[in-house]
Amino acid sequence: MALSPARKPAARHRASAAHEALAGPAPTGKPGREPYNHERWLIAKMMRVAGHPPVRFRLWNDDVVEPEGREARFTLWLMDPRALYALVANPNLAFRDLYISGQLVVEGDLAQLTETLCQSIRTARQRWPRWLGALWRTQSQRPGHVDGERASLDHHASPGSRFYELWLDQAAMQFTCAYYERPENSLEQAQLAKLEHICRKLRLKPGMSVVEAGCGWGGLSRYMARHYGARVYAYSRSREQTQYARAEARKQGLDHLITYVNDDYLNIHGHYDAFVSVGLLEQLGQNHYAQLSDLIKCCLNPRGLALLHSIGRNRPMAMNTWIEDRIFSGACPPSIGQFIEICEHNDFSVLDVENLRLHYAQTLGHWLERFDRHRETITAMYNEQVTRSWQLYLAGLIAGFRSGSLQLFQVVFSHSNNNDIPYSRQDLYVFPATPEGL
Amino acid sequence: MALSPARKPAARHRASAAHEALAGPAPTGKPGREPYNHERWLIAKMMRVAGHPPVRFRLWNDDVVEPEGREARFTLWLMDPRALYALVANPNLAFRDLYISGQLVVEGDLAQLTETLCQSIRTARQRWPRWLGALWRTQSQRPGHVDGERASLDHHASPGSRFYELWLDQAAMQFTCAYYERPENSLEQAQLAKLEHICRKLRLKPGMSVVEAGCGWGGLSRYMARHYGARVYAYSRSREQTQYARAEARKQGLDHLITYVNDDYLNIHGHYDAFVSVGLLEQLGQNHYAQLSDLIKCCLNPRGLALLHSIGRNRPMAMNTWIEDRIFSGACPPSIGQFIEICEHNDFSVLDVENLRLHYAQTLGHWLERFDRHRETITAMYNEQVTRSWQLYLAGLIAGFRSGSLQLFQVVFSHSNNNDIPYSRQDLYVFPATPEGL
Repeated sequence: MALSPARKPAARHRASAAHEALAGPAPTGKPGREPYNHERWLIAKMMRVAGHPPVRFRLWNDDVVEPEGREARFTLWLMDPRALYALVANPNLAFRDLYISGQLVVEGDLAQLTETLCQSIRTARQRWPRWLGALWRTQSQRPGHVDGERASLDHHASPGSRFYELWLDQAAMQFTCAYYERPENSLEQAQLAKLEHICRKLRLKPGMSVVEAGCGWGGLSRYMARHYGARVYAYSRSREQTQYARAEARKQGLDHLITYVNDDYLNIHGHYDAFVSVGLLEQLGQNHYAQLSDLIKCCLNPRGLALLHSIGRNRPMAMNTWIEDRIFSGACPPSIGQFIEICEHNDFSVLDVENLRLHYAQTLGHWLERFDRHRETITAMYNEQVTRSWQLYLAGLIAGFRSGSLQLFQVVFSHSNNNDIPYSRQDLYVFPATPEGL
Repeated sequence: MALSPARKPAARHRASAAHEALAGPAPTGKPGREPYNHERWLIAKMMRVAGHPPVRFRLWNDDVVEPEGREARFTLWLMDPRALYALVANPNLAFRDLYISGQLVVEGDLAQLTETLCQSIRTARQRWPRWLGALWRTQSQRPGHVDGERASLDHHASPGSRFYELWLDQAAMQFTCAYYERPENSLEQAQLAKLEHICRKLRLKPGMSVVEAGCGWGGLSRYMARHYGARVYAYSRSREQTQYARAEARKQGLDHLITYVNDDYLNIHGHYDAFVSVGLLEQLGQNHYAQLSDLIKCCLNPRGLALLHSIGRNRPMAMNTWIEDRIFSGACPPSIGQFIEICEHNDFSVLDVENLRLHYAQTLGHWLERFDRHRETITAMYNEQVTRSWQLYLAGLIAGFRSGSLQLFQVVFSHSNNNDIPYSRQDLYVFPATPEGL
């Protein structure tokens, strides 16, 4: 389970007056009036402030404003003068809503555009006067809405498994970062390699017991049961995902090895040889970390290993760039330091940290490609807004991972007095983790 | 460079009155008076409070006090009744000084004894009443004497290279944790494998420039120059080590590639493709971490990688068990969280953390074995006290690493917007890091 796109931006963010004014009928696409000179000036000014990204504007009457002193790589179509005013008033708040409503249309690679804008603004904002930072602030109340996060876990599955089946991998239905042993590997290969890599990091052996917090559609637990003969207890709060996972385990003859529990991970009890959680942490608030740490302390056998896999950041920071804030409304990725606090809290010994940031960018690229391929089906299932919202979400995440504002950490740890730890990491790399013939 | 044994315990620790009373002539070894009943009672009581370690006491008149309800694995000889009173008054403070002065003699494996005592006391102290914790407190003023640490860097080399040549590896004169690809490898193999492992983690290529903060006798820099054709700038504050390193580089025909600078690492300037520091961090205080981070930020090229290798801990804590406090008087190993703060401070991206705790225990085992082999030579060079002090130091470190109260972290990181980072860690493990035919 990864993050999901912001659902109710209006409820979450107090939009500016100019932005509110946009809440009108969808644009008709008719050629509009001539743009005023001050509107061209506004665009030029905005681009200067954003660090001159290679972006061309096409206006409602098909007039074009080229970027200053460089070749344009992307075109932003503004369908309506009101879109321009909303964008200038606060690009942080307006971009996503304009894109989703169709008042702003992107020509060019959406993921590359978001990455380019991210990097350009990140550099440029260092020179912004304070008033501009305040005007274009994202206004999210990030640290406060942590309990909202936990509630959003249930919403998470709301598009239904059918939706995700269209564009996630066909091998294990993974909505988390894959592991590309070779950059040319397919999404299916990389997702199975991720599962294998995790099993190896946990040094699984037949008969071991594993508990998984937040199991999604159960792909990891089935892999552990099928390939390692592990007995897995997998917790998910989503009823639909649990049902899906149980049906798959039955179908694959693995139900004698796996117990899917439709419950909060906090209700995990018993003792296990391994604890694993993939894609849960970024959805919890930091105020749940101590509880999670205590839970692992209780349920991990003295010689057991634990693995946490989560989106993270290089340092604690508010979600403050336009793409992240407007896209990540349901998540709170920990900084690596906050991640480590989970270990320090109970004197766990950190054995291994790996950062798979570029793998997540590639995973998202594969997802976006498939999503685009099923664009029409998805629009028919929902509507154009949902489709555009997800596209922008995936593209925005790519930008986050490529620009280094998001990281993907896998952390392995054990009780501090456990000397039965792996002597080195060589054994992780003896054989390819990617399955043959896929 | 690793830690060094406490040099002036009396100056650092306010010993208890009972302990001060010990400062008399060395024991004569003559059989003494009969022990009183209350002295036997004191020993039994002390052993109960320490969690019943499998330790037998042999008293000054050759009487023996066996441990309650278990087989003894070690014998502690008390040569003098005063040794008993000092030990009971505060084992934390007395053990080391009694051992070094010869008033307490150990029969059995010294490293195993210290590990056993560490673990026994760690468990037992949870049940101690507060007054006992206060009475047996270590009384060190750890966070305060950070500037003392930096001064101690100079003392560090004071026993002279000849002393270390006797018991460090013959291959690269490394006074830091080795890397045992196979547990049966020799110290020489493991130290060269460590150097190779570090070069691989930094993805060194011919012509790259590397700066090393705290280079010791220059073993790593020579390895980088010889095997990777790197241009290395290596800083050490020790004049003797710098002279040694320069002479070795000349002898090995590597002086055109290496510049040894006899200066503080804080005076590093210029820009480099890699930053490396092995065994420096544990000798700095935390109040130097931000400075170190800023230095790396300045001197690391945009696509460069940095590696820090240091003794660490699972969580921030005062040095509070007897062996650590009395032995580590010159060091301040960071917790993994404090380690990570160096990265967070400048938005560095943590790419890889590896914990080599058990490798350090094995390295120390090899050092202690060689040290014991040269015991007589060393005693002739210095005196019996110095020899015993180093033996206890090495044994105590083994106990620290084996019991999990000390860790060895290698952390690799880069600037946050560097996308030229290694895609995976597979390439670290393609060929053995251990040289053949050694």
